[in-house]
Amino acid sequence: MQLYSFFNSSTSYRVRIALALKGLAHDYHGVNLRAGEQRGAQHRELSPVGGVPVLVDDDGVTLTQSIAIIDYLDARYPQAPLLPKDALQRARVLEVANLIAIDIHPINNLRVLGYLQKELGVSAEQKDAWYRHWVAEGLAAVEVLLQRHGHGPYCFGDEPTLADCCLVPQVANAERFGCDLGGYPRVLEVYRHCLAQPAFQQAAPGRQPDFIQ
Amino acid sequence: MQLYSFFNSSTSYRVRIALALKGLAHDYHGVNLRAGEQRGAQHRELSPVGGVPVLVDDDGVTLTQSIAIIDYLDARYPQAPLLPKDALQRARVLEVANLIAIDIHPINNLRVLGYLQKELGVSAEQKDAWYRHWVAEGLAAVEVLLQRHGHGPYCFGDEPTLADCCLVPQVANAERFGCDLGGYPRVLEVYRHCLAQPAFQQAAPGRQPDFIQ
Repeated sequence: MQLYSFFNSSTSYRVRIALALKGLAHDYHGVNLRAGEQRGAQHRELSPVGGVPVLVDDDGVTLTQSIAIIDYLDARYPQAPLLPKDALQRARVLEVANLIAIDIHPINNLRVLGYLQKELGVSAEQKDAWYRHWVAEGLAAVEVLLQRHGHGPYCFGDEPTLADCCLVPQVANAERFGCDLGGYPRVLEVYRHCLAQPAFQQAAPGRQPDFIQ
Repeated sequence: MQLYSFFNSSTSYRVRIALALKGLAHDYHGVNLRAGEQRGAQHRELSPVGGVPVLVDDDGVTLTQSIAIIDYLDARYPQAPLLPKDALQRARVLEVANLIAIDIHPINNLRVLGYLQKELGVSAEQKDAWYRHWVAEGLAAVEVLLQRHGHGPYCFGDEPTLADCCLVPQVANAERFGCDLGGYPRVLEVYRHCLAQPAFQQAAPGRQPDFIQ
């Protein structure tokens, strides 16, 4: 199995967590988003939208979109299931995962922040305020959902799910941007629990072959 | 079943299509996003992030996030299935659905465009260019994926899926913003086929009780 990833990409980090939880060996191919490698013709063959992660599985199936990849891995490799079978439990996991993957992350990813600075000429301060605004709105809602429906050391019980695969990279990202996370105690509790687990540690940006200080 | 929706919200439109395809009766509650009703305390009880759609099913389960809602409806009401059982076919549907739901729509939704104008003071022209930029990047990738993996009158075959539920509102939205869609023939073919079907017509913005000209 081949994974195209950037150490610092949250969406790549999600898939790395899923692969580590399932114990799936893979070859790691770094795609340097800072150098624009994702926009080259060679990478566009793998990812038409020019992004990471991309998974190429052993029978040559090439797949983009982190949530689609994790759903696929979960169906193909059922060990350490990441999506519950029960319709409502599954819906709760998807609700939190999508809240992070849709309402927080895309607005704050590298290409959007780049557009704000290069095309719209916003200042570094305005860019940081933008980032913190969407994180604050989104994590406040994640906190409410976890307080209402979650329990246990992970988002939803004693085992990690897709929700944890999404939560950890987002909180790590928010910490990197210096967001105040004091208002989200349950989010932080889950985050810290995950960071203490070997699979999450293995997937962390600092442990990837393309890591740059 | 209760649906909280805004006629012009793409994410609400996705769920309305799913409900119509499955023939599920529901009470419609309009939430006027232009008047800011989504940010009121009453609506935040239903949707902590302050958005639409929200589904409240007959046993009182309250669920947000359009993709989570559609997945839940698909599990609870298996008629007119919207997600294939086969892992790879399912992955292809999720790949296109997520590309639209993550890489195009959130960057261009009302709250983000509002922030650009109110907080960052961008002009109407700059806002429109922003909108068209993300639509062009995203739909070009959708076109490639549909040409590679899709077939049939819908995105993936003879029956509609979650991918069509996401594609139609996004293309309608792009048309409304005057985007040039000539470069996406397969996207347009699917869009036009869907618009000719009664379920998609029933779900259209102009047919909702809260429609405003």
